[in-house]
Amino acid sequence: MGVMRIGHISIKVMDIAAAVKHYENVLGMKTTHIDAQGNVYLKCWDEWDKFSLILTPSDQAGMNHVAYKVENDADLDALQKRVEDYGIKTEILPADALPFVGRTLRFNLPSGHQMRLYAKKECVGTDVGTMNPDPWPDDIRGAGVHWLDHCLLMCEMNPEKGINKVAENTKFMMEVLDFYLAEQVIVGPDKNMQAATWLFRSSTPHDIAFVAGPRQGLHHLAFFLDNWNDVLKSADVMAKNKVRIDVAPTRHGITRGETIYFFDPSGNRNETFAGLGYLGQPDRPVITWDEEHLGRGIFYHTGELNVAFTEVYT
Amino acid sequence: MGVMRIGHISIKVMDIAAAVKHYENVLGMKTTHIDAQGNVYLKCWDEWDKFSLILTPSDQAGMNHVAYKVENDADLDALQKRVEDYGIKTEILPADALPFVGRTLRFNLPSGHQMRLYAKKECVGTDVGTMNPDPWPDDIRGAGVHWLDHCLLMCEMNPEKGINKVAENTKFMMEVLDFYLAEQVIVGPDKNMQAATWLFRSSTPHDIAFVAGPRQGLHHLAFFLDNWNDVLKSADVMAKNKVRIDVAPTRHGITRGETIYFFDPSGNRNETFAGLGYLGQPDRPVITWDEEHLGRGIFYHTGELNVAFTEVYT
Amino acid sequence: MGVMRIGHISIKVMDIAAAVKHYENVLGMKTTHIDAQGNVYLKCWDEWDKFSLILTPSDQAGMNHVAYKVENDADLDALQKRVEDYGIKTEILPADALPFVGRTLRFNLPSGHQMRLYAKKECVGTDVGTMNPDPWPDDIRGAGVHWLDHCLLMCEMNPEKGINKVAENTKFMMEVLDFYLAEQVIVGPDKNMQAATWLFRSSTPHDIAFVAGPRQGLHHLAFFLDNWNDVLKSADVMAKNKVRIDVAPTRHGITRGETIYFFDPSGNRNETFAGLGYLGQPDRPVITWDEEHLGRGIFYHTGELNVAFTEVYT
Amino acid sequence: MGVMRIGHISIKVMDIAAAVKHYENVLGMKTTHIDAQGNVYLKCWDEWDKFSLILTPSDQAGMNHVAYKVENDADLDALQKRVEDYGIKTEILPADALPFVGRTLRFNLPSGHQMRLYAKKECVGTDVGTMNPDPWPDDIRGAGVHWLDHCLLMCEMNPEKGINKVAENTKFMMEVLDFYLAEQVIVGPDKNMQAATWLFRSSTPHDIAFVAGPRQGLHHLAFFLDNWNDVLKSADVMAKNKVRIDVAPTRHGITRGETIYFFDPSGNRNETFAGLGYLGQPDRPVITWDEEHLGRGIFYHTGELNVAFTEVYT
Repeated sequence: MGVMRIGHISIKVMDIAAAVKHYENVLGMKTTHIDAQGNVYLKCWDEWDKFSLILTPSDQAGMNHVAYKVENDADLDALQKRVEDYGIKTEILPADALPFVGRTLRFNLPSGHQMRLYAKKECVGTDVGTMNPDPWPDDIRGAGVHWLDHCLLMCEMNPEKGINKVAENTKFMMEVLDFYLAEQVIVGPDKNMQAATWLFRSSTPHDIAFVAGPRQGLHHLAFFLDNWNDVLKSADVMAKNKVRIDVAPTRHGITRGETIYFFDPSGNRNETFAGLGYLGQPDRPVITWDEEHLGRGIFYHTGELNVAFTEVYT
Repeated sequence: MGVMRIGHISIKVMDIAAAVKHYENVLGMKTTHIDAQGNVYLKCWDEWDKFSLILTPSDQAGMNHVAYKVENDADLDALQKRVEDYGIKTEILPADALPFVGRTLRFNLPSGHQMRLYAKKECVGTDVGTMNPDPWPDDIRGAGVHWLDHCLLMCEMNPEKGINKVAENTKFMMEVLDFYLAEQVIVGPDKNMQAATWLFRSSTPHDIAFVAGPRQGLHHLAFFLDNWNDVLKSADVMAKNKVRIDVAPTRHGITRGETIYFFDPSGNRNETFAGLGYLGQPDRPVITWDEEHLGRGIFYHTGELNVAFTEVYT
Repeated sequence: MGVMRIGHISIKVMDIAAAVKHYENVLGMKTTHIDAQGNVYLKCWDEWDKFSLILTPSDQAGMNHVAYKVENDADLDALQKRVEDYGIKTEILPADALPFVGRTLRFNLPSGHQMRLYAKKECVGTDVGTMNPDPWPDDIRGAGVHWLDHCLLMCEMNPEKGINKVAENTKFMMEVLDFYLAEQVIVGPDKNMQAATWLFRSSTPHDIAFVAGPRQGLHHLAFFLDNWNDVLKSADVMAKNKVRIDVAPTRHGITRGETIYFFDPSGNRNETFAGLGYLGQPDRPVITWDEEHLGRGIFYHTGELNVAFTEVYT
Repeated sequence: MGVMRIGHISIKVMDIAAAVKHYENVLGMKTTHIDAQGNVYLKCWDEWDKFSLILTPSDQAGMNHVAYKVENDADLDALQKRVEDYGIKTEILPADALPFVGRTLRFNLPSGHQMRLYAKKECVGTDVGTMNPDPWPDDIRGAGVHWLDHCLLMCEMNPEKGINKVAENTKFMMEVLDFYLAEQVIVGPDKNMQAATWLFRSSTPHDIAFVAGPRQGLHHLAFFLDNWNDVLKSADVMAKNKVRIDVAPTRHGITRGETIYFFDPSGNRNETFAGLGYLGQPDRPVITWDEEHLGRGIFYHTGELNVAFTEVYT
């Protein structure tokens, strides 16, 4: 009941052919649809719904919207009421406003990012099927990512003006969409400002994350890998494909995730993220990171944030 | 809302000192309480509640009960009504009927196994804490299992007498406790008998499993490891401790899990189970295994079931 | 100077097409030559010489000969003298007696197995080349084994008749071919019979091994994998290809190797063997296993030898 | 016959207590001796000789000497003659000039680094012993490195003055000490200057390496780990111990090694290096890297050299 997981993300790319090549050859996704406007829809081998990524041609990079899937169609009505009651305007898009997707609840997060909720998307099955399946298909390409795992959205924070969209988003996600808080970064002289949060609805450490920055944007979209060995393979694949790597293999203190950050040809940051980390549970004590330990929270090994990581996003 | 995950399992052991040594030195759990009756309570380093395993002295092996944790105390009342309405008698145990545990709903599954639901257990925190935590503690012992992951219960199946407790349990868990079906084994001349099922409430492939056998029993209790390398370490630890191994490192076709089966000194089967496998989701298409592929479903590599695996349980 | 490593092995197969399919699709080798007699020559992607495996059509399985490569052509003359001086007859085969191979010293080990030494074989390069190479090629198939690593030969042992070909072979390899002893199994009432030995010339724990049995034969030929994760992938590949697995993933106590044993379609036993284990060195203290611990020496986890493993060979 | 492997390295440290803590708690070595001058001798658990690292108190960091072990005592005389004949002065140190070490041949490489060769050092055995050994001991600390694997020496290169100590060292090592060249970096307008070389005597890709720099020095000493998972554990251990990391987990293109670079408290660079990579063999085709691909040769994933890596050494 309610939100289950991230369903898809729609991002802008400046060279659609280069982008498709990147998501197919490096990440290992497959194109499942191209619409009349030239938008390209892709899925990962271990996803069963028609697509999890939409590439839209544009003159800049960035996110159009992120969509989460809810369990039942009726959830959309219940959640629409709760979102409206919270004071946020919503709109219901009819079925097929996006191809293969049922009616969709659209609204903006307090940070301004467009979010969508939907209950139905054409199910095409994973690449291993449902009868006596193998654990992985024979034709894996590139990093062979399993699924779109989460996104991290940059939210405006300006303490002098009293703006903290991280805190506002977090409150909204918890109170209205029933997300749970896994981890948070608390900063400020009074140690009371949420500068970053990681929230979940599934049992993974995060299905969405918000981090403070000077302006709204997309920090990264992340894809799931099984383990640290797949992270190495993924990095090797990037090297072979001359992908621009932002942060080479390391571990996050936050979520314990094993990770690589890199960029698609338009500059949208991608992550290959490995391991369950821990079981996200409503009663799991919330983890808090303070400013002194934030570096190690982000990059556990070096404890150092590279400038690009926090300042460059789309 | 509703059941979150497995909370603990209470098992009988014939030599309590040997059992404690096994669960501490091989699995890496810590004793957190010993009650007046000599029952020993243990937890894993990555669990936050007071215990997940109760060892009770006995003259035989086997399970006393398995308990699942629900999100809210009020869930217990709602679920009691649903269980009773389904035609199963229930009882509410008062808080502290088990030490550190709140009021508890007790009933028997159709298979006869005792199940308990509770909402509260003393939270003592994981071994890495909640402020700027390390990904793992310094004093890991043995296999260093993260948490009690699931149990597999053997249920009576006798087609000639029309008895199939696997199907009855599965129906009950789905209709009354809102579990989702991840995978099933379908057998019989008409291919319509559920001989085994794997069900989840969290986003892992299974929180409980039922397999058909000649009589009711406990097949195994399973503990979570991060990955295949931890499975090797776990097997090495077993070898060093002269643990009786049932099935050496392999992969399950079902759940994709990487695994070892072995026995505690009383003969209760343990499993160290690694990897998320895939994301359990309400809308994930159910996977079905037929009789011809069952061997590979259980032990993917050899495709052969050893006799002990299906016939020996407690 | 002297023997460097195993160069190739020539084995008999009963269905050449099935064998080629096995070594290509499961192991990941490539056919590099087929001669007029229908013998098929294959190499692994990380080998630079023309071939490391010869499949010869036959009505039974087993080994024709095993060949080791020496560093310099002159080594052949020096070694011929030493072998002859030791009392073993030798023969020099002219260059191209085997295609792409230089002149070759042929003789039989005390156990009766045919061994060959050669200094030259056509070098065709690894699949990643020598200019700015990637760590692995893009078109890896199946398990993607790196190279032929070693073979294990079964040697007749009959204490009642005073026959111990393991000890005889070992003495010959050490005294004449300058091999070093890494590990040995010592059995018998007086604990003085070498029932198995592992010997090396490279810095790996073994380049050849001898184990006692009722008759001479080939126990297995082994291929190198990087690590335990590749062992899992290798086992998955075998499952997909319905390969008959003898022993699922486990660790050897002897050599510390991570391993799977399985059979080619003719019944020749293969091994995929992972990890360096330890550095083989002339001054490394020799490791000894006694009868009581032999099971764990072979299969470290279970400590149990399956009957097939010791009795079935070609 | 001849050089077998690196035997030990003697380095200068500015705070002996901090250094011992580092090599014991982070690397996992054990102190085996402290001499009257306060020099501390340590070994890794998988080494059998008395020590592989000597820490000497000093007011600066850097290397005193590096020592390689030869197979036979007589090799020292033969090699002395060859070194002298090559035009390099030598000296024979008596047994026990260094505690537990036999007579030692001392000379300077063309680059000015002091090298020593010895044939005997007290053998104390690995931590798992030689009778039915476990694959690893129970009391592993920190990263649990197996052995000192190699060192990389910075050698003066000044094309304008016609100085290339990399090439001079390489020629000496190959012609006099019978090392084999595994890989080289070739630079310059005429692509004829060896700016870096990797050489071996064992079957690993390198036992020593030389890289061009403005002045002579020690770039790093490297310790062996089994695999990429141990690299992650090693990085986690460094984070827990607040070790200064130079380069987080990545892969070398050269040698294929999986690696982390970090510093001891005095600023001597350490490496934990994992995996065999490939089998070093006299007849393996030499790998060459050109200037355009050098970045990827060093750090395969990002392809970028950080400034500190090439300019900071001791």
